[in-house]
Amino acid sequence: MITKQLTHPKSIVVVGGSNDIHKPGGSILRNLIEGDFSGKLYVLNPKEDVVQGIISYRSPEKLPDVDLAIIAIAAKYAPDTVEYLAYNKNTRAFIILSAGFSEESEEGKKLEDRIVKTVNEVGASLIGPNCVGVLTPQYHGVFTKPIPKLDKNGCDFISGSGATACFIMEAGIPKGLTFANVYSVGNSAQMGVEDVLKYMDESFDPETDSKIKLLYLESIEKPDLLLKHASSLIKKGCRIAAVKAGTSEAGSRAASSHTGALSSPDNAVSALFKKAGIVRCFGREDLISVASVFTCPELKGKNIAVITHAGGPAVMMTDTLSNWGLSVPPIEGKEADELKEKLFPGSAVANPIDFLATGTAEQLGTIIDYVDRKFDNIDAMAVIFGTPGLFEIYDVYDVLEEKIRTSSKPIFPVLPSTLTAKDEVETFVSKGRAYFPDEVNLAIALSRVYYTHKPFEKEPEDFTPDTKKVRDVIDEAENGYLSPENIQVLLDAVGLPRVHEQTYYSKNELVKNLSSTEYPVV
Amino acid sequence: MITKQLTHPKSIVVVGGSNDIHKPGGSILRNLIEGDFSGKLYVLNPKEDVVQGIISYRSPEKLPDVDLAIIAIAAKYAPDTVEYLAYNKNTRAFIILSAGFSEESEEGKKLEDRIVKTVNEVGASLIGPNCVGVLTPQYHGVFTKPIPKLDKNGCDFISGSGATACFIMEAGIPKGLTFANVYSVGNSAQMGVEDVLKYMDESFDPETDSKIKLLYLESIEKPDLLLKHASSLIKKGCRIAAVKAGTSEAGSRAASSHTGALSSPDNAVSALFKKAGIVRCFGREDLISVASVFTCPELKGKNIAVITHAGGPAVMMTDTLSNWGLSVPPIEGKEADELKEKLFPGSAVANPIDFLATGTAEQLGTIIDYVDRKFDNIDAMAVIFGTPGLFEIYDVYDVLEEKIRTSSKPIFPVLPSTLTAKDEVETFVSKGRAYFPDEVNLAIALSRVYYTHKPFEKEPEDFTPDTKKVRDVIDEAENGYLSPENIQVLLDAVGLPRVHEQTYYSKNELVKNLSSTEYPVV
Repeated sequence: MITKQLTHPKSIVVVGGSNDIHKPGGSILRNLIEGDFSGKLYVLNPKEDVVQGIISYRSPEKLPDVDLAIIAIAAKYAPDTVEYLAYNKNTRAFIILSAGFSEESEEGKKLEDRIVKTVNEVGASLIGPNCVGVLTPQYHGVFTKPIPKLDKNGCDFISGSGATACFIMEAGIPKGLTFANVYSVGNSAQMGVEDVLKYMDESFDPETDSKIKLLYLESIEKPDLLLKHASSLIKKGCRIAAVKAGTSEAGSRAASSHTGALSSPDNAVSALFKKAGIVRCFGREDLISVASVFTCPELKGKNIAVITHAGGPAVMMTDTLSNWGLSVPPIEGKEADELKEKLFPGSAVANPIDFLATGTAEQLGTIIDYVDRKFDNIDAMAVIFGTPGLFEIYDVYDVLEEKIRTSSKPIFPVLPSTLTAKDEVETFVSKGRAYFPDEVNLAIALSRVYYTHKPFEKEPEDFTPDTKKVRDVIDEAENGYLSPENIQVLLDAVGLPRVHEQTYYSKNELVKNLSSTEYPVV
Repeated sequence: MITKQLTHPKSIVVVGGSNDIHKPGGSILRNLIEGDFSGKLYVLNPKEDVVQGIISYRSPEKLPDVDLAIIAIAAKYAPDTVEYLAYNKNTRAFIILSAGFSEESEEGKKLEDRIVKTVNEVGASLIGPNCVGVLTPQYHGVFTKPIPKLDKNGCDFISGSGATACFIMEAGIPKGLTFANVYSVGNSAQMGVEDVLKYMDESFDPETDSKIKLLYLESIEKPDLLLKHASSLIKKGCRIAAVKAGTSEAGSRAASSHTGALSSPDNAVSALFKKAGIVRCFGREDLISVASVFTCPELKGKNIAVITHAGGPAVMMTDTLSNWGLSVPPIEGKEADELKEKLFPGSAVANPIDFLATGTAEQLGTIIDYVDRKFDNIDAMAVIFGTPGLFEIYDVYDVLEEKIRTSSKPIFPVLPSTLTAKDEVETFVSKGRAYFPDEVNLAIALSRVYYTHKPFEKEPEDFTPDTKKVRDVIDEAENGYLSPENIQVLLDAVGLPRVHEQTYYSKNELVKNLSSTEYPVV
C-alpha cells in the first residue's frame, strides 16, 4: 500500500546518513537537502551528532516520531530498525536502499520477509529494498543522479530497475521532459510496478495528478493488476507507455540474472499491452520520444502538416510518417494560395509547408494559424526549425511556444540545432516544453501512439464454460469421433462464437428445411 | 571535376566578404579566420579596404592570383566575376553560396549555365551554387554552424542539402563523431553527390583518406556512377552509409519542392544500395549511429558479448540484437568460471556479462581481455557503462578507451550518463572516440551494418540474349504452345540459369539414358 507518509511526509529520517557523499546514505542526504525538503529532516548514525548540517541521533530512542524512514544500512540491521521505528516512532513509510536481501541469498530473503511482515502489520508502505529510492515534487528521495525537474504535470515513472531509471531520465532531461513521481521498486518486497500503478489508479485525481505514466518492467508478476489499472487510468484520460525488457530468449536470460525476473513471451506482452492500451516501447530513447508525444495534446487523426524552413528533415519525416501509416496529405485550394502569398517567393505550402531558410517568426505564426483554423484536412502539425547560425532564433521559438499553448491542434516541435541554438533551445525548455531533436524518431513515436488503441469501454461479460456438457459429449463419442452436431454442441459449451450450421443427411431433408434457412448460405 | 585548388587551396578570396556576420559573406569569412586557414586570405568588396582584419580589394584587377573563390554576391553578378577570376587570376576552384539560380527561375538557370561553361573551359571545380560550402581540415569554407572537429580520419560527408548537412553534424558532434571533408553540393551545377564520390574513389589513397563516407541524397541523377564508385570504394576498404530522402509518394512531393529532385521508388533505392554495398539509413540519428559503428573495426560475425554494470540496458540491448538477427550467445566453461571468480559475488558472466553497480575499472579490463582472448564464440563487445553519480568514472573510461585501441575484437561503447558523467564523457570523446548514448539504437545500427553485404568482387560477365533463337522458337510454336525442349532453348537463349532437364516420351527411353544421368534426380 502507498501511505500519505510516503507521498507527502512531514518528516524524514535517513538511517545511515553520513558525510560521505560517495555512499548512498551520504548521497541521498545531500539530495534531500539540495531538494529543499520543507519538512523535518533527521539522521540516525551511531557515530555522529551532526551530518551535513543535519541533526543526527546516535540511537533511535531520542528520535522524534517520523513519517518516512530512508534506510541505508547493512541488510542484517534493517529488520530491527524497521520494527523499532514502526512500533515506537509511528513511521508509516520505508524506503530501503540497501542490497543484500532476497536478490542475494536465502538468508537475505528471510530478512526481507521480516520487514514485509512488520510494515504490513502497521499498515506502512515499503519501497525496495535494493532500490535507488523515490523522487517527488515534495522530496528528492534517491541517492542517485540525475535529478530531473520535478513538477506535478511531469511524467509519473515506475521502474523495475534503478540504474535503468537513471539512464532513462538522462535521456529525457535534455529534451525538456519533466517528472512528477519516480518510483524505483527494487526487489518489490511489498510493492512492485503493478502495485504502484494500482495506487495511482485508485487515488487518481484529474486535477492534481499527472496524466502521463511511464513504466520500465523486467517482469510482469501480476498481469491482471497491470491490465486492470492501466486500462482504468487510460479511461480516466491518462496515457501510458512501457518498456518490457527481457522478451527475447537471450534477453530473458539477461533479465533473470539481473533482477531474477522470469521471462514473458514477446507476443504475450504485446497482447497484454494492446488490450490495456499501453504504448509499447523498446528502448530508452524510444520511451522518451513517446513520453514527449504525450506532453502534447492527443493526436485525433493521422493527417500531419510538416512545417519547416529546411527541406531535408521535412522530406525524411514525410517518408517516415508515410511508411509508418500516417499521412502528409496535400494542402491546396484558395486558402492555401492565400497563405502562399504571405510567404517569401519560392515557399511551398502543398505540405510539407516550406517557408525557406529566410522564413521569419511572424510567417511561422501565420502558417500555424492557417493550419489550425483553415485547413480542415489536417489533424496536427510538426514544426521543424533549427538554424545554420546566421541569426538568433529566440523570436521563432517564442512564437512556436505560444502557438503550442494556444492552437487547437497538437503541435510537435522538432529543434535540430541543439549546439548552434543551444541557448534558444534551453529557453524553450525552460518554459516547460519538451522537444524532439530528430524528426524521424518523432514520426515513429507518433505512429506508435496513434496505432495503440484505447482499451474497450466495457469488458466482455464473464462466461463460464459448461464443463458437464463437454464431458458428456466426449464420453458419448464413439471410436473417438465426433458428429458435426456434437462439435457444434462443444463449441457452444465453451462459448466460442460460430456461424450457424445445420447438418442434413438427405436431399429431401435439406429441401424441406430451406424455407426456414437464413441467407446467405454456403 | 575536383581540383587541388578546391581541396588544398594556397589562397582564398571571399567575394562579397563583409563585416556583417549575419550574412553569408561575413559569416564564412569569420569561419575561415577562426579555422586558422594557413594560406593567403583576401576579400573582394567594392566598399571596404579591410574586412574583419583581412585586406579587401574594391575591384578584382588588383587582386593577386587566387586558387579558390568563395562567392557570396547576388546571382546576377556571379557569372562575370567567375569569368574574370577564371581567365585573369588563374582561379581553379569556385564555391558559390548565393541562391537565385536554377532552383529559382529560368533566368537563374541561364546564369548557372554560363558559370558552368566558364569553369569547364578552364578546368576548374564548381561547388554549388545555392550551397553552404565545403569543410576540410585545410579550411572552414562554410557560412554555417556548427563546425565539427575536422581530422583526416573523420567522416567524409557529401550532402544534397546544406541545412540538412548542418543538422546531421549537430546530431553527430555531441557523440564524438569527427569529419574529414564535408561537401554541400547545392544545385549540383557542375558536380552532384555522385560526382564528388567519383572523385573520392578515383583519387583514393588508403594512407591519407578517410574510409568512412556518408551521403545525404534527395535525388540520384546518376545511379550508374553511384553504383560504380560506391562499390569500388567499398572494395578498397571504405564503408558507406546513406540516406535517400523522398522515397514515399508524399516525401517525393516534398523533395521536389525542396531541391527539385525527382523521386526514386523506394525499392529501386534499396536495390541500388544493396548492390553497391551501401548501408541504407532513414534519418539523421540513424545515419549518425551507423557512422559511429563505422568508426570501430568491422564486425566479422554476429555474436556479441554485452558487458555492463547495470542490468536493464543490457537486457534491452540483448532483446534488440536478437530481434534484429544478431546473437548474444551464452558464455560458459572453465574460463567463464575463472572470469567469474575475478568479479564480485553476484556478477554474471553467462552473457550479458554483468559485473554489478560496484564493478571497477580493473574488472572491466579483465572482462574485455577474457572476451578478446579466451571466448572464441564472441565476435565483438558492447560495453554499457554509466553512473548513478556516487563516483567519478574517469578510470573506467580510460580503461575502455585503451581496450578499444588494443583489443583485437571491436568494442562499441555505450555511455548513457551524458549529464551525470558529462565531464568523463567529454574526456573520452576528446581522445577521438565516438560513443553511443542508447544501446538499442546501437543494436539496430549494428544489424543494419552486419546485414549489408559487400558488393560482388566481380560483376557477372555481360550476356547478350540470343534474340534470333528466341524469335525462331516462338515462330515455330504450333498453336502457341511450346514443347518442354523449346522452353529450355528459350531459357538458355536469354541466359536464365536452370536445373538440367531431360524429356523422355517412353519408359524404355528413360531407362536407356539413366546411366548417363547425374544424380540426384527429381
